[in-house]
Amino acid sequence: MADIPIRIGIIGCADIARKVSRAIQLAPNATLSAVASRSIDKAANFAKANGFPPEAKIYGSYESLLDDPDIDAVYLPLPTSLHHKWAVLTAQKKKHLLMEKPLALNVAQFDEILKACEENGVQIMDGTMWVHHPRTYKMKEFLNDKERFGLLKSVNSCFTFFADPDFLKNDIRVKPDLDALGALGDAGWYGIRSVLWAADYEMPKTVTAMQGPVLNEAGVILACGASLYWEDGKVATFHCSFLSNLTMNLTAIGTFGTLHLTDFIIPYQEHEASYTTSSKPQFNELVTGWVPIPSEHTVTVNLPQEACMVREFASLVENIKKNGAQPDKKWPTISRKTQLVLDAVKASIEKGFEAVEIVS
Amino acid sequence: MADIPIRIGIIGCADIARKVSRAIQLAPNATLSAVASRSIDKAANFAKANGFPPEAKIYGSYESLLDDPDIDAVYLPLPTSLHHKWAVLTAQKKKHLLMEKPLALNVAQFDEILKACEENGVQIMDGTMWVHHPRTYKMKEFLNDKERFGLLKSVNSCFTFFADPDFLKNDIRVKPDLDALGALGDAGWYGIRSVLWAADYEMPKTVTAMQGPVLNEAGVILACGASLYWEDGKVATFHCSFLSNLTMNLTAIGTFGTLHLTDFIIPYQEHEASYTTSSKPQFNELVTGWVPIPSEHTVTVNLPQEACMVREFASLVENIKKNGAQPDKKWPTISRKTQLVLDAVKASIEKGFEAVEIVS
Repeated sequence: MADIPIRIGIIGCADIARKVSRAIQLAPNATLSAVASRSIDKAANFAKANGFPPEAKIYGSYESLLDDPDIDAVYLPLPTSLHHKWAVLTAQKKKHLLMEKPLALNVAQFDEILKACEENGVQIMDGTMWVHHPRTYKMKEFLNDKERFGLLKSVNSCFTFFADPDFLKNDIRVKPDLDALGALGDAGWYGIRSVLWAADYEMPKTVTAMQGPVLNEAGVILACGASLYWEDGKVATFHCSFLSNLTMNLTAIGTFGTLHLTDFIIPYQEHEASYTTSSKPQFNELVTGWVPIPSEHTVTVNLPQEACMVREFASLVENIKKNGAQPDKKWPTISRKTQLVLDAVKASIEKGFEAVEIVS
Repeated sequence: MADIPIRIGIIGCADIARKVSRAIQLAPNATLSAVASRSIDKAANFAKANGFPPEAKIYGSYESLLDDPDIDAVYLPLPTSLHHKWAVLTAQKKKHLLMEKPLALNVAQFDEILKACEENGVQIMDGTMWVHHPRTYKMKEFLNDKERFGLLKSVNSCFTFFADPDFLKNDIRVKPDLDALGALGDAGWYGIRSVLWAADYEMPKTVTAMQGPVLNEAGVILACGASLYWEDGKVATFHCSFLSNLTMNLTAIGTFGTLHLTDFIIPYQEHEASYTTSSKPQFNELVTGWVPIPSEHTVTVNLPQEACMVREFASLVENIKKNGAQPDKKWPTISRKTQLVLDAVKASIEKGFEAVEIVS
């Protein structure tokens, strides 16, 4: 059987779909096969503007794309409130699913999506790009190094950006009927994921939201934070906001080492990305300097992180399609854990910043 | 009147006194005049090992140093539990006071020290060095820049170091009768100070300790953290620990800018120190990079931060001694605010992580 790339259709012409369209083109094992919008003109314009091949199909409804037998998988960048309906339908149509985060409005909804995927033997993966960056794998090697990093003790993660008045009025991420989870579902998703990533996806025992979250008039979160506590004493904090300057810091501190970077979600530049590590630094004799100082590591990028993500997704789909493999469980399990913590943060805010126990 | 340097005596031969001895030598307006220890041999050895001038006096008791009329000021690096007694006595002997942090076991104690200083017209300043680094003043210019930084929204500060078994068993900072505030009084002091510094010393309204602080068998804090909340919605978090790899990160995020550094307390190197700023960065069109990326700024150091501290202290003392000025109130006010927040964190831990209101 020849290596035929996985044929991906895009449902919805969100801004982020432009970046993912390019990623699908760049991924060696995927191809842009179709785009659907509720307006066929919008879909046609999107395809034209985003380098779709001439043979790609243009659909004026999501259903028609899902009925196309020549599509293997769907990328779903719709607002969160539409995820459940369209993800379940996609699975029922036996299409594999690459889905924007947050996956659902809550974990119960996500579990229904998961169930539909399992029943129909389709792969599901969420669209968190940075975990697929080669830098992320290099950083993980450091975190796993018991000599250089030791045991994880604490994590701090922050993702904020300053939304302009138009965003704060009109973006789907501030609308209770579209992305009801607001900054928590958008920016906070990354913070939670980064904390779980650093903790090897071991779930915290409790989650307590920070006081003083900012909500808009419709009750959608514009800024919030939380602290997470593990049975073994590990602690983590994250902060997310639409109201502060663009910042994306991640620090993981172990007994012997520290990992730090300031562009963990979107690297400053596409062609290379850096992070710093320090291992067992001491002060010099008079405590006027460090020995050694932290070291910076730079990873050269052949394929942008979003294309690495598509490549990973397509290879899982390929394995099912060509080899009859079972859908991979690693990525959906990680997605579910992220959503579980997200739900707990929301619950803690609603309960007046009480500690909320995580029940997996 | 010729420029005669301020004559400083050191009470107690703590490790940190070695660094400060050198700083007193380096400061252009101060001189090392005496050292006292409960053991005169220890004092003599300390003077010899730390470059005291031959005319410096060696005392076998703290009282005798305080009685020396040729001493203008005292540097007090004693364990916290001894601060109150010796600081009050120093003030009563009309000696100005440079004092190690934490200033006291609680603000009530510190207020008694302050009262003694006021009644005796002596200057008091705490030994927080980094606020005197020229880098700190450059960073403050950025934070004050309404165009480039905007309004402060959040601060995250972290100071941890990995104490060896000997430290955890024998250091004064783990002993309830010596430095009863443990990691909170030692490492946490810097975290709290950095948060207040970023907030222009505006006091938070409430403080909530993080769950899961680590205490030793004697009940001394080895690791803890807290979040701080201001009336206007600003939030801050800090984390301090004796149990994690050496890390000292500070991030202040405004509406338009971000300040970040990873060696805020002890710069990596003595001769220069760096920090990064970013102002109104955006993502590029496809959200695959930042425009612009943050910029790094390096400040060259003529005088180490601890010598800048001594210079500042000595110049305040000089102003009192030569010009009959009143003792400066800026530094003790800042010290008191730091201690107030520290007390609130401790109270919150003791109250099971309740939010504690700050009463100034």
